[in-house]
Amino acid sequence: MQKSAVRDIRIKKISNACISEEDDLIAVEEPLEIQIAYQSGGKRIKKSISVTMRTPGNDEELATGFLFTEGILYDRNQISKVGTDIFDENKVLITLTDNEIPRLQTSERNFYTTSSCGVCGKSSIDAIKTVSPFANQPDDISVPVGLFYSLQNTLKKQQEVFQNTGGLHASGLFDLKGNIILLREDVGRHNALDKAIGASFLQDQLPLNRTILLLSGRASFELIQKASMAGIRIVAAIGAPSSLALQLAQEFGITLIGFLGNERFNIYSGSDRLKI
Amino acid sequence: MQKSAVRDIRIKKISNACISEEDDLIAVEEPLEIQIAYQSGGKRIKKSISVTMRTPGNDEELATGFLFTEGILYDRNQISKVGTDIFDENKVLITLTDNEIPRLQTSERNFYTTSSCGVCGKSSIDAIKTVSPFANQPDDISVPVGLFYSLQNTLKKQQEVFQNTGGLHASGLFDLKGNIILLREDVGRHNALDKAIGASFLQDQLPLNRTILLLSGRASFELIQKASMAGIRIVAAIGAPSSLALQLAQEFGITLIGFLGNERFNIYSGSDRLKI
Repeated sequence: MQKSAVRDIRIKKISNACISEEDDLIAVEEPLEIQIAYQSGGKRIKKSISVTMRTPGNDEELATGFLFTEGILYDRNQISKVGTDIFDENKVLITLTDNEIPRLQTSERNFYTTSSCGVCGKSSIDAIKTVSPFANQPDDISVPVGLFYSLQNTLKKQQEVFQNTGGLHASGLFDLKGNIILLREDVGRHNALDKAIGASFLQDQLPLNRTILLLSGRASFELIQKASMAGIRIVAAIGAPSSLALQLAQEFGITLIGFLGNERFNIYSGSDRLKI
Repeated sequence: MQKSAVRDIRIKKISNACISEEDDLIAVEEPLEIQIAYQSGGKRIKKSISVTMRTPGNDEELATGFLFTEGILYDRNQISKVGTDIFDENKVLITLTDNEIPRLQTSERNFYTTSSCGVCGKSSIDAIKTVSPFANQPDDISVPVGLFYSLQNTLKKQQEVFQNTGGLHASGLFDLKGNIILLREDVGRHNALDKAIGASFLQDQLPLNRTILLLSGRASFELIQKASMAGIRIVAAIGAPSSLALQLAQEFGITLIGFLGNERFNIYSGSDRLKI
């Protein structure tokens, strides 16, 4: 049985100097260990790749999405089985098909450092370029400006756990007509996106180059990096982008929208995909 | 010269179907490499401990705070020098005094996993207990409920970069009368808190057991873990707490307040420190 994403608690509420006791719901945060198993030199190797603090739910998508956006896996067919540990729901094991080896080198570099030029935004971006299977693909998509006005409301209506707890980030994937394809939630914004991309990866839907990604919060470097790995060309965030997120979007030709509200938003890069 | 926390950019603004071009400011996000140097067996050892995506500013506090909240350093006197690389502003080197060895074992465990019982909230919490120098200290502080009403406004007034960019998390430390002691900002909420704790650590102000911590966003496990390391007894968040954050606060006897607004908030644990 999958763990619940919310938990019942009892809280004290202070309002205008009055105190009351009430039942409330809180978003669950627990560690998920992502493990990978494969054959090498006739031996079965099982490795723990990462532990991420996540909200339970769609854990197998999260594990798969993480391995893909980190560049460790690149193709659905590399996976023979994805399974949650029957003794511990906080562990997911991804077993590779015969002859498939995970690209762990990529992950150890973690996209942030290269030995050659030290730590800088430029080197981080270069590192991503070398592993992203779908970066810089040509495309001819264009979307009317008005389509973005309704996205936030659609996301909010679908964000069940957030409505209950006020505590979760969401990543939503929309088609080019503004219809929602899927939505995933998590206490960690990077997990919400890994779940969404992992779901698409498991359904063999990558690249997502005809999909709009909506982020419920801010657009950080890490999120644009993950989006670029999945081939996403248009990213809209309810919050602000960071400088490195913008730099990455520019380099990869991603349309980046921020402060998306009702009837208003800012375009930071790639405005040529938008039609007035 | 320290890098700027904000950058000028040119954006397109869409508002009610009108488009305009405007100057804007964006929060800078760049990687910071945290390095440590120490003597062992007559040799000088220099190690890269972590790379974190951060907003430039207070980098030396961030590096120090990170090493402290991760349990790698525990005392101000272990440090002989903290310096930013003169050739690369994205690197901070912390040099230890003679005979001081960093507790890297702790960090490798990363607080999340123990070999004995797998991955669960309980094991994460137990791991923290073993390394936190100031957890579970007795205290007799109590604070009037009304004091919390003004904290959010004080934080907002002081949050300069946020006002310019809308893009930053903040951690504020207040005394028990509600006066602000210091405030730090970052694109990463954990970095904002590491900066605040690092500043206190460098000024030999730990433990912060007579200090209120105000978080501009949600209260995650990681933030309560860092607060507990610094001996903080009262944490108030503008957003929601997670289940594991609450569990940790309960175990460590930390007062946890969420959804702090004007004249209203929720108390999740440790209400005995509040006076009506």
